[in-house]
Amino acid sequence: MKISALEVRPNALLATWSKSGRVTYPTLWLRDNCPSAFHPQTEERVLDLLSLDDEPVLVDAERAGDEVILHFADGHVSRVPTALLSAHRPGRAAQDPAAIAPRIWRSEMTPASLPRYGAARILDNDCALRAWMQDTAEVGLSIVDGLDDRVDAGVEIACKIGFLRETNFGMTFEVVSKPDPNNLAYTAVTLPLHTDLPNQEVPPGFQFLHCIANEAEGGGSLFADGFALADDLRAKDPDAFRLLSEVAIPFRFHDRDADIRTHAPVITLDRHGKVCEIRWNAHIAATFDMSADLMPAYYRAYRTFMAMTRDPAYQITFKLKAGEMIVFDNRRVLHGREAFDPSTGFRHLHGCYVDRGEFNSRLRLLANKTH
Amino acid sequence: MKISALEVRPNALLATWSKSGRVTYPTLWLRDNCPSAFHPQTEERVLDLLSLDDEPVLVDAERAGDEVILHFADGHVSRVPTALLSAHRPGRAAQDPAAIAPRIWRSEMTPASLPRYGAARILDNDCALRAWMQDTAEVGLSIVDGLDDRVDAGVEIACKIGFLRETNFGMTFEVVSKPDPNNLAYTAVTLPLHTDLPNQEVPPGFQFLHCIANEAEGGGSLFADGFALADDLRAKDPDAFRLLSEVAIPFRFHDRDADIRTHAPVITLDRHGKVCEIRWNAHIAATFDMSADLMPAYYRAYRTFMAMTRDPAYQITFKLKAGEMIVFDNRRVLHGREAFDPSTGFRHLHGCYVDRGEFNSRLRLLANKTH
Repeated sequence: MKISALEVRPNALLATWSKSGRVTYPTLWLRDNCPSAFHPQTEERVLDLLSLDDEPVLVDAERAGDEVILHFADGHVSRVPTALLSAHRPGRAAQDPAAIAPRIWRSEMTPASLPRYGAARILDNDCALRAWMQDTAEVGLSIVDGLDDRVDAGVEIACKIGFLRETNFGMTFEVVSKPDPNNLAYTAVTLPLHTDLPNQEVPPGFQFLHCIANEAEGGGSLFADGFALADDLRAKDPDAFRLLSEVAIPFRFHDRDADIRTHAPVITLDRHGKVCEIRWNAHIAATFDMSADLMPAYYRAYRTFMAMTRDPAYQITFKLKAGEMIVFDNRRVLHGREAFDPSTGFRHLHGCYVDRGEFNSRLRLLANKTH
Repeated sequence: MKISALEVRPNALLATWSKSGRVTYPTLWLRDNCPSAFHPQTEERVLDLLSLDDEPVLVDAERAGDEVILHFADGHVSRVPTALLSAHRPGRAAQDPAAIAPRIWRSEMTPASLPRYGAARILDNDCALRAWMQDTAEVGLSIVDGLDDRVDAGVEIACKIGFLRETNFGMTFEVVSKPDPNNLAYTAVTLPLHTDLPNQEVPPGFQFLHCIANEAEGGGSLFADGFALADDLRAKDPDAFRLLSEVAIPFRFHDRDADIRTHAPVITLDRHGKVCEIRWNAHIAATFDMSADLMPAYYRAYRTFMAMTRDPAYQITFKLKAGEMIVFDNRRVLHGREAFDPSTGFRHLHGCYVDRGEFNSRLRLLANKTH
């Protein structure tokens, strides 16, 4: 984009851009973001904002190659790259390679249409790593196959993205039927669709479940796009949607070593009002504490959402094979499994989490490295 | 508390408590929280809520020792501990040992009045550990002294609370003047009051800075209670408070290995409207992206808060000694340091973080173990 005209006001620069029209840059913002305001090595801002006037007075502006040169009344001269003025037009969020719009899905999603990537390519090739991460961010769910038959093979792939999110269940966890379980995942019973650890202030971001063995009868996996559930609830029952997005309910997990609680709504909206997170886990929803007056309406909304999670119209089901890993956005996609019979064979998934922050950071770095 | 009367309605139990009057328990809530609804080992809910009617019909209720026995029209009988009904009266949050009200402070806080605990006692004694944690939660700031002269001595104390929060700076970090810094903390310049990593979706909770050496000239520490700043801003300039708590601004840290960004307000309010978090770091505030119309008012608010952070009326200053560790709530208390002259001596702090979730979990477990 090019600047076709510059206009100087005492308290602002007005730039007319070839495509987006006239844009106002207040002078204090210009000084706050002058290249001279930043440390040359750390690129952190070192300017003391309080050393400036409320409205520094701009006296002249001129184009010079790729820069705009600004002269202020106090003698300061800023050389501002045109690209910076274009990237940071006030009122627009800066471009972000990690801002990937979700592609909502329902039962039209099949195992064959899920994003599927080979482990070797992800490990060897940054373009493949980036494509897999973009697809996983968009769909919220992907399969990696061809994993080595080693317990760490899935973790190694997760660590291509970033460090693991530790939780009270450890840095990694084994989904197997255990004799003294502290969690229903560690039994052989059916697990209805849920998200993990909604009792945490921030539940884990992306979950990685590497299937090491799945020989027992039963034990199929199911998934649903929580954003589809929430969007459809908003359309068909706005009152229920409002309650699930406004009323914070208590969640709690506790055992001998941890007692982790939070209050949060089932549906979280971002600052633009879009659904950005689902917390759904009836097992660790704690005792509801809203007023008794609100309770009947809240339960009605909660049960409406619960019934939607049981509707095959939202579900994809398949049985993971040894050497496959399912990867999903735990703050969006609900996961569950059928009961299995441990006497008929061994079932073992090795799991770990990487948070959204690390995931998005890697996407941004890869955007600079790959094309 | 004792129940003085029970009244049965088809859709609710009405209990009259000796101290808090009559309380309504909707029948669906009673069934959802019936002791039979939970797994005997994991204590997670296994009841299928959709197996119940919208309003299960209660037909009888009787007191029997420490329990209330409920008879429902579908034949179900609940034996509900009276203590459960008392602890979970609808409309009241359950008691939580980690819900510690902050004690706000300003310059009346002195180094001598800060909570101070010996490392050996914290490591050996759960009562001392709990008292220290409660004081740290209340004041947001404490000193531990008598640490061994080993680089891990502070981390060992932090790990009495819970596992460390890893960040892009590592599991632990060294605050020393470095030749190729990626962060101003790793230089010798003045660091004005700030909170760490507001560019993370959730900034680190509690910070631990173990002073291993502080022999250079300068290098004093300063702290301010961000909740005091926010409360006073709310009182004296409600418009500025509103802008700082409503407008999400961009924060960003980036270097070769990470590019971590978020949008968040400077002041975060909890669901009751109380200040629960401060993000303040002018170095990594990214280029503001609100509309140009809003910018002058926002900058005015932001600079008003910035001026308050410079006001000695909010500050406590002292110089850490080798063998001392400062511990503070990084989501509440701002920290900074004076410049120092690396040619006059060595200055070395060893740092780590433990998040609020682990901190609060430990407080709850200790409440059960200690008196």
